[in-house]
Order: sequence, then structure tokens, then C-alpha cells
Amino acid sequence: MKFCSNCGNKVTQQIPEGDNRLRFVCNHCNTVHYQNPSVIAGVLPEHKQQILLCKRAIEPQKGRWTLPAGFLENDESTLEGALRECDEEANAEVIEPTLYALYDIPYINQVYVFYRAQLKNKEFGPSSESTEVALFNEEDIPWDELAFPVVRAVLKRYLSDRKSNQFNVIQEVITRQSHRP
Amino acid sequence: MKFCSNCGNKVTQQIPEGDNRLRFVCNHCNTVHYQNPSVIAGVLPEHKQQILLCKRAIEPQKGRWTLPAGFLENDESTLEGALRECDEEANAEVIEPTLYALYDIPYINQVYVFYRAQLKNKEFGPSSESTEVALFNEEDIPWDELAFPVVRAVLKRYLSDRKSNQFNVIQEVITRQSHRP
Repeated sequence: MKFCSNCGNKVTQQIPEGDNRLRFVCNHCNTVHYQNPSVIAGVLPEHKQQILLCKRAIEPQKGRWTLPAGFLENDESTLEGALRECDEEANAEVIEPTLYALYDIPYINQVYVFYRAQLKNKEFGPSSESTEVALFNEEDIPWDELAFPVVRAVLKRYLSDRKSNQFNVIQEVITRQSHRP
Repeated sequence: MKFCSNCGNKVTQQIPEGDNRLRFVCNHCNTVHYQNPSVIAGVLPEHKQQILLCKRAIEPQKGRWTLPAGFLENDESTLEGALRECDEEANAEVIEPTLYALYDIPYINQVYVFYRAQLKNKEFGPSSESTEVALFNEEDIPWDELAFPVVRAVLKRYLSDRKSNQFNVIQEVITRQSHRP
């Protein structure tokens, strides 16, 4: 951030009165510009023993596999966002969604919220955001071609939870280190 | 938003190519300025049969009671944010935090994450953000003087869950209507 989005003058970094963090501040119109983490909402779509994944058509991580997920928009709930992304990225519709995971990724200022849900039917397919959409059995999951550490984390946990059929809501932090082999 | 925070020129509202929503766009440096919901992290601090609440020293809802909670900062997890707010607003330290609730409030573009936790000791007190901090028995909770609908919602649910000692993670949406009597 270089300029004030309210008045167009240059901003400076300073600690506002009563605060303890550096913020971008406009000394012309006195606006403090806070910068905060983003929410990413997604779905882990199940179909019998299979999981639906999308091959990314766009950067970052173009060509790698991911779960349908994306930035939460204003005016929508995390579930609405998750279902929208499932539609946009996989042309898929799911039913019976339940909250499954909250992953903090503080080093990139993201909070992921995943819902577990059942594919409504086997109608799904590529989109402008995914070159391929496919169902995977556990033994076929492309572990070395996954797009993001959080996708690996939630898939690993899901496969473990599935063995016991106990799906408690996950709350975990993903650090820069935690996903390195 | 009126000016581009990257180059200082005026922004316009338009739907970028490949998008389907109006965004603030700078046609000078081609930056798209996305606006997304904020995360608020908080704690429901328990002490035996009592709950800790804070009387707000600042707007909005100055003078009304709330749970310690505030905007998640960059570089911190939701749990770190919740514990920080508990310290800043109540001068209180908690132990054994567990994820308790995810409340979407789409009409004000907020996502609340609450942890349930035990007060470490009875050391707590007012701060620059709270004129009073106090422990409440169920029958003394100031229902008519609570600051926000989400505080009422989580307290109601907590008191109900406590009866059965079953604290499943809450996932609910608070609408503009849902909190009206």
C-alpha cells in the first residue's frame, strides 16, 4: 500500500495512538488502513469411497491438484462460499455439508474453512478454473502433485478419520515448516 | 474506496474479465482491489460455573457487555488472536482452549471464531478497551445489555451445551433478522 484509498494522498507506516502495531496511515484524511487475514472456504466432496479433486487451470500452482476452495466474498457465509467454489471450480453440486476443518496459515495470512459434503451425483467437469476434475480412490491420490500444504493436511486427516468414522472438527495451524518432508 | 492504494489514481467499479462481481479497479496500473470478510477471534472464558464478560470502553456498543474478541491480525492464528484479545480486553489469561464456534455474519462481512477456555486464575481487570471485567453466573448475565447478537448466540448455546456437557463445534449463520425478538 502506497496511497490512501480514501483521499489519494501518500500513506506512511506508523503506530496509531492506542495501537501497538505499524499500520498504513494517511496523515491527510487521518484514515488508518488495517490489513487483515483472508478467509478461504472450500469443500471436501466425497462420493462413496472417492474424493473429488480439481487440477488448477490458473496460478498459483497451475497444473496441480486441489480441493474446490477460494476466497470468501463479502455478503456470503463460509458455507455459501464453499458451495460456490465447488460449483465454479468443479461444476459439482454437493449435499449434506458439515463443518470439517479450520486451518490457520498465519505465514500467508489465511484462514481456511472446509466443509465435508457428499457429491449430489456424478455430474462434474472442468471449468475456467480447472483443466480436469476427477474422483480419486485413496491409493490414487496424487500426493506429489497437490497444490497446497493445507490440501495435503486435510486429505491426510480425512483418510485417517474415515477409518474410525469419527469426523471431529479439525483445528490446526499450518506453519511454513510443518509441511516440509 | 475512491483511489488506488498502489498508484493513487481514481478507481472505478467494474467487473474484471473472468470475474462476475463488481470490484474496485484501477485502469491506470490495472490493479483489482478485492474486498473480503474479516475474521474476529474471541474467547468464552469459564471459571467454574461462571463466565467472564467485558464492558466495552469504546464504540461500537460502548457500555455494553461482550466476550473478549477482536479483529484477527496478520501473522497470527485464530487461537493466538483470541488469546491476545483476552489479554488486551480483560487482562486475563486462559488455559485449555478448544475451538467452540464458527459464526458467519454475512450482512456485516464478518466471520467469528470462538474458543472455549478456562480462566487460569482470578486475575483479570479493566483495560483501555473495557471499563469493567466481571464473572457472571447464568442467572446474572445482562442479556439486555449485550453488545452484539453473536455474543448472545454463543452464550445461549454454551449454557444449553453445558447442561449436557456436550460441546460440539457450533457452525451457524447470524442474519440481520435472526437476532430480533
